[in-house]
Amino acid sequence: MKKIRLLTPGPTPVPERLSLRMAQPIVHHRSPEFEQVFARVREGLQWLFQTKQDVVQFAASGTGAMEAALVNFLRKGDTAVVVDGGKFGERWAKLAKSYGVSGVTLKVEWGNPVDPAAVERALKEYPGAKAVFVQANESSTGVAHPVQKLAQVTQKTGAILVVDAISALGAFDLPFDAWGIDVMVSACHKALGLPPGVAFLAANEKAWKLNETADLPRFYFDLKRERDNQRKNQTAWTPAIALVEGLDESLQMFREEGLEATFARHERLARGARAGMQALGLQLYSKAPSAAMTTVLAPDGIDSEKLVKHLFKQYGIKLVGGQDAAKGKIFRIAHLGYFDDFDVLIVVGAIERGLSDLGARIQLGSGLSAAQKAMAQASGAAA
Amino acid sequence: MKKIRLLTPGPTPVPERLSLRMAQPIVHHRSPEFEQVFARVREGLQWLFQTKQDVVQFAASGTGAMEAALVNFLRKGDTAVVVDGGKFGERWAKLAKSYGVSGVTLKVEWGNPVDPAAVERALKEYPGAKAVFVQANESSTGVAHPVQKLAQVTQKTGAILVVDAISALGAFDLPFDAWGIDVMVSACHKALGLPPGVAFLAANEKAWKLNETADLPRFYFDLKRERDNQRKNQTAWTPAIALVEGLDESLQMFREEGLEATFARHERLARGARAGMQALGLQLYSKAPSAAMTTVLAPDGIDSEKLVKHLFKQYGIKLVGGQDAAKGKIFRIAHLGYFDDFDVLIVVGAIERGLSDLGARIQLGSGLSAAQKAMAQASGAAA
Repeated sequence: MKKIRLLTPGPTPVPERLSLRMAQPIVHHRSPEFEQVFARVREGLQWLFQTKQDVVQFAASGTGAMEAALVNFLRKGDTAVVVDGGKFGERWAKLAKSYGVSGVTLKVEWGNPVDPAAVERALKEYPGAKAVFVQANESSTGVAHPVQKLAQVTQKTGAILVVDAISALGAFDLPFDAWGIDVMVSACHKALGLPPGVAFLAANEKAWKLNETADLPRFYFDLKRERDNQRKNQTAWTPAIALVEGLDESLQMFREEGLEATFARHERLARGARAGMQALGLQLYSKAPSAAMTTVLAPDGIDSEKLVKHLFKQYGIKLVGGQDAAKGKIFRIAHLGYFDDFDVLIVVGAIERGLSDLGARIQLGSGLSAAQKAMAQASGAAA
Repeated sequence: MKKIRLLTPGPTPVPERLSLRMAQPIVHHRSPEFEQVFARVREGLQWLFQTKQDVVQFAASGTGAMEAALVNFLRKGDTAVVVDGGKFGERWAKLAKSYGVSGVTLKVEWGNPVDPAAVERALKEYPGAKAVFVQANESSTGVAHPVQKLAQVTQKTGAILVVDAISALGAFDLPFDAWGIDVMVSACHKALGLPPGVAFLAANEKAWKLNETADLPRFYFDLKRERDNQRKNQTAWTPAIALVEGLDESLQMFREEGLEATFARHERLARGARAGMQALGLQLYSKAPSAAMTTVLAPDGIDSEKLVKHLFKQYGIKLVGGQDAAKGKIFRIAHLGYFDDFDVLIVVGAIERGLSDLGARIQLGSGLSAAQKAMAQASGAAA
């Protein structure tokens, strides 16, 4: 018998309650029954985004919402500043290029957060820049970029701040209205714990103003058409009905836990994972670790790809390794979504065993003990 | 107690077997386990499309694949002939316009199939036209356009034939290679019986040739990038994992029944529904009824919207009414996907009751009896 456990930054484990909800008989999307569900989901997403703006959804995975975040606000030939500190930053740059937007790429060393002053300088150098694209959590490195500070920078300019919060929303605090984020996208298969297939986007007045003159071609991802439909609890195109039902249930689970408690839980799990790894003598890879995931340098002489494969084969624990320059060097633990303290103990325990199997000098139990203490302390219990 | 029964042209009822499969623990999309599933799905879709070409999938509903069928083959300023005999024909025209493609619209009276000679004339008038866009089954009218004959027309020209088979694939025969269709799109929430969220597209050499020079901007729906990834059982962006698992199961169900038997079943159900309606003295709306659905004119003095609402409220039977000019005049019965003879008896029985409730002069049982006989005859049993 082998239990399979995903600790990957999307997909994340689907709570049984969501699977059962989605397995209910399908309803028609043009029906009063579905409209009620849709209305609740709209409100729930606003609550989760902490915004009074519409949160518009698309039947697509996260990259679809990223595309929507570009084509609905910019014009061909526009300049945009792209923060590129990993695979998903790169994706913004490729997207911009595909649509004839001139991307000024701010290369950030992998594992590091962007310096808001660098963005400020870029916006001074390119005063006509219409947007700054960034990740809230760069999933390839586990870095949380300083979104609040970036918003303070863009607010003084004509550029909108466009935040990819795909693997961040619901894991840590990103108050859309309070911080003055202009556009934020996310998806259902991260903290929300659903299978992939629904992505969403919120935009504020500054962004909607740009929408009025945006001329990049769009149809499936036309934001205004969708917003106008969704305000009537309809969608322009057929929605991903079962996932919308699941979203209704997932948002209900979020409300039952409460937003602060959800963020505190993710922070606690992150502290546990970090403490566990550090107690094993390992180094964290991210210089600004997010609460959604913990990225770790494999010890000298151990190929992280080999470790990742071994953990799955031997223990059913699914982590992901590094990409590109980080390949073979790091492994990534996502504790994002349907996870509690004991899941962190499992993954720390498995990493202890796996490293030991591969010949690393590991004191079995030391990571576990540190993780346990860190999480107990974070939860307010006696350490 | 009220049983709910959907006879709508998407979503269609989800077989229990598919729901249970999709409720299994989610797997990671970058894993050998998922690659095996993906490889089977690719083969299964080729079998269902009756093609040796790649069938590329997207995490989107059908309109996403329609967009892909435009942006991957045309250039800005290109001319295309659009067959517009209903809401979905209109959608092709709107899509073309959004991307700066000049659409020559062939208006076809609702309820009628396009005349292939009219398409031939249009292609002579616009010899530079790059594509003809049409529906295999126009869901708003229940018309099956003459795809095979249209392919014979386009084969003599430089234009590709682009077929929206979203509500047709798996319901009736559309042999992609044998007929020389150039591009065909479909989706998982029609005959395949899944919740919406995956759409697919096949293209032949003539279309791929156009792809080399196509310059419409695209990213999420970039066909070549996806094809190249999917040949390695990967996807460029996160796939709709649970739906892909469901697709694997659905295609397995199709294989168990066999393609010919599936088409024969849909044809049998269509005959039953038509016979039932005609025996009640009702007129069919479609002049070229497809096997996927039966569209019917409401009797004089009865608003079809009222009938549709009454059937759902009173009997839990979900049909759809007409759109635009056909609103209030027609109702549409889809017998598409997970339906057998007895489901047709249910819907005919409900319509008898509903019409009778609303004051129409209906001989209860006459529709049922005719449907029963027609289906028995079609199945080869003694009538």
